[in-house]
Amino acid sequence: MADQSPMDKIVSLAKRRGFVFQSSEVYGGLGSVWDYGPLGVALKRNIKDRWWTSLVQARDDIEGLDAAILMHPKVWEASGHVSGFTDPLVDCRTCKARFRADKLDDARCPQKPSKVPGAHTTCELTEPRSFNLMFRTFMGPMEETASVVYLRPETAQGIYVNYQNVLTSSRQKVPFGIAQIGKAFRNEITPGNFIFRTREFEQMEMQFFVKPGTDEEWFEQWRTIRMDWHHALGLNPAKLRWHEHGDGELAHYAKAAYDIEYEFPFGWQEIEGIHNRTDFDLGRHQEASGRKLEYFDQAANERYLPYVVETSAGADRVTLTTMVDAYREEDVDGEVRVVMGFHPQVAPVKAAVLPLMKKDGHPELARELYRSLRARFAVDYDDGGAIGRRYRRQDEIGTPWCITIDGETAADRSVTIRHRDSMLQDRIGLDHVAVWLTERLEASS
Amino acid sequence: MADQSPMDKIVSLAKRRGFVFQSSEVYGGLGSVWDYGPLGVALKRNIKDRWWTSLVQARDDIEGLDAAILMHPKVWEASGHVSGFTDPLVDCRTCKARFRADKLDDARCPQKPSKVPGAHTTCELTEPRSFNLMFRTFMGPMEETASVVYLRPETAQGIYVNYQNVLTSSRQKVPFGIAQIGKAFRNEITPGNFIFRTREFEQMEMQFFVKPGTDEEWFEQWRTIRMDWHHALGLNPAKLRWHEHGDGELAHYAKAAYDIEYEFPFGWQEIEGIHNRTDFDLGRHQEASGRKLEYFDQAANERYLPYVVETSAGADRVTLTTMVDAYREEDVDGEVRVVMGFHPQVAPVKAAVLPLMKKDGHPELARELYRSLRARFAVDYDDGGAIGRRYRRQDEIGTPWCITIDGETAADRSVTIRHRDSMLQDRIGLDHVAVWLTERLEASS
Repeated sequence: MADQSPMDKIVSLAKRRGFVFQSSEVYGGLGSVWDYGPLGVALKRNIKDRWWTSLVQARDDIEGLDAAILMHPKVWEASGHVSGFTDPLVDCRTCKARFRADKLDDARCPQKPSKVPGAHTTCELTEPRSFNLMFRTFMGPMEETASVVYLRPETAQGIYVNYQNVLTSSRQKVPFGIAQIGKAFRNEITPGNFIFRTREFEQMEMQFFVKPGTDEEWFEQWRTIRMDWHHALGLNPAKLRWHEHGDGELAHYAKAAYDIEYEFPFGWQEIEGIHNRTDFDLGRHQEASGRKLEYFDQAANERYLPYVVETSAGADRVTLTTMVDAYREEDVDGEVRVVMGFHPQVAPVKAAVLPLMKKDGHPELARELYRSLRARFAVDYDDGGAIGRRYRRQDEIGTPWCITIDGETAADRSVTIRHRDSMLQDRIGLDHVAVWLTERLEASS
Repeated sequence: MADQSPMDKIVSLAKRRGFVFQSSEVYGGLGSVWDYGPLGVALKRNIKDRWWTSLVQARDDIEGLDAAILMHPKVWEASGHVSGFTDPLVDCRTCKARFRADKLDDARCPQKPSKVPGAHTTCELTEPRSFNLMFRTFMGPMEETASVVYLRPETAQGIYVNYQNVLTSSRQKVPFGIAQIGKAFRNEITPGNFIFRTREFEQMEMQFFVKPGTDEEWFEQWRTIRMDWHHALGLNPAKLRWHEHGDGELAHYAKAAYDIEYEFPFGWQEIEGIHNRTDFDLGRHQEASGRKLEYFDQAANERYLPYVVETSAGADRVTLTTMVDAYREEDVDGEVRVVMGFHPQVAPVKAAVLPLMKKDGHPELARELYRSLRARFAVDYDDGGAIGRRYRRQDEIGTPWCITIDGETAADRSVTIRHRDSMLQDRIGLDHVAVWLTERLEASS
């Protein structure tokens, strides 16, 4: 274990314990596509639910939406994706490989792996050509231009084209927001770093529609709210920072953009972007569709195209962040203890019920407790092996509390609760466990 | 309203109140693709969460999974989808339209809409050709055969190819199951009936792995569990029935298959299928991958390829079912009251907080209650218009309880709770509302 890199340790634990598996692994895997196993799907669901609850349920100025992945191709013409969502690619006439022209320094010739393809002695490169990152497919029975549709490269456009329907049906007034969680697809040339950059990924996006002129104030407010959200996930604040997009970096639609970055073992990387998209997108859709998308403010008797402040987080990236941030190794009595120190609210398993022995009524009491808890909490039952070994198994998947049924339980219906981080134990009543867990989970929110 | 068909009424209400919008409507819509609005996404999430909780959290023999939509193309060769997942199509040489050869009686010539294309005087038809229903796209920078990938036409295969990884990492033993919720795509020639048959849809599938010979017993057990689940959603039992697949209907992989059908306004239609898929899929993947997928039963010291009992429900179909089943019109004092009688646990909004007047402290008390409730429940706040009108608005979206703050509230901190179905009112303490709602929601589960 000591000779593995930090990311290798996480990838290995993720597979061994059922967080993340390589897609189609029995067929040798599909490049940079990953499947979430039992613990990974629980972790990711908890993160998505936390995002959804904080934005949609707990606020009265944000509505939820779930737009389809397939959209009318005119959406992507209007948004600029058909013409402009491209990477510059060069081919090598000698080795036949293809590289990103703007990332040549990081590339290696497949035939001479120590060589950079840019060096003319190694690869004979063509001029750069634009390569669109959208996945194309055909809808309907015929494969022809007329039936081309794209897998959406971002969920945001699904919100913009539904903005008027949501506004009308929900009776909201500007300022208000629309939140959505969903899959998006980008045919990246250089995906990588486990689930960090993948071709199929899930976004958690919120578009907040505001009156022009109030956009800068709202932009600052959303920066604060979103950074607070990541802190409340329990992430190490020293590993979170802001990156402001300079003039050369700003997307064509953005007036201002800040990334929330996390320090991964592979460097500081974006996990969420806050963008002032102005009225660019609504303006483009208004022009392309011929449909008036202006907002009429009755109180002020004025009409305007709202500005949009976008908060766009990667669900897979935040999931990876929680795993990287939670991972730690501790020396306990000369042995290495691996702990995933997840925030209790995102931990895939909240508590494990462990009968100390497989006799003396321990299993019966443990099953009784387990059954009463699982209707309300994600709980594990484990009766396999020595108790110390079972604690370690739970530490490694980040279970905050282990509840042990022992000789005293039968006598006085008390159990021990062992805390993952401190390894200290409390003794409480068996019948009080559900309330105890509820209080602990609410206190940690 | 009276001259609309039942489905037209539901589609109209769905759009007006924000359950379901047509995708890309500002661009004229995309055929048979739909987006879920604020109330629709809430309803569908509640249904999916209920399915997930009942199978994954509340049972100890089922694990969750979230496999990617993009999979290795060999998966679809082995499963038989590349060669066999086809519809027979015929072209008309005269009008150039394309039809399903097996559904010609239901088709109409686009040039002569009263004519069936099968009639030789109308359309001159070609011989039927096989048309594969999988959406194809290209992964990586080049569009060539080597890089073809498919959008999965069912989530089940994602479970089969991960079966060993889940088994190993979760320490389960056969019999056990794997459950998954996710999108699938089929390039249907004749989609329709609102969100019933769409090209992009969401499945809730569970594959239960059992010892051969015990499969028939498990098949019966799962039939019971799944029908009970639909009953517990509050659906009208008279509109649910079993349809057994006869010999001619059985899929190539199935030994037995029963559909749960619901009586929609457009007829009895499948909302869930229970299939005995035998060891067909694992056998095919074992053969194609060269990887042993047998299970070793330590206790019995025997080795076998498990049989699979599948329960496959459509999340969109169940969502449509709850809407169709919930819709009713009542005559109240000579006026029509439209009610969506949703089960409280799936209702998009659990309670609405309504200040009777916009003065006398009603709004302040109402906001206080609303704010205290929304951290835990999906609640609405509505102060617009006469109280009767506000009740009707909530009835139409299926909110089970309306909480009204009135003159007495300021005096004694009591509120009225009005029940959607009976329209009767209770009076309870303001500070007791959260507990009252919790108890009602738990009692209805």
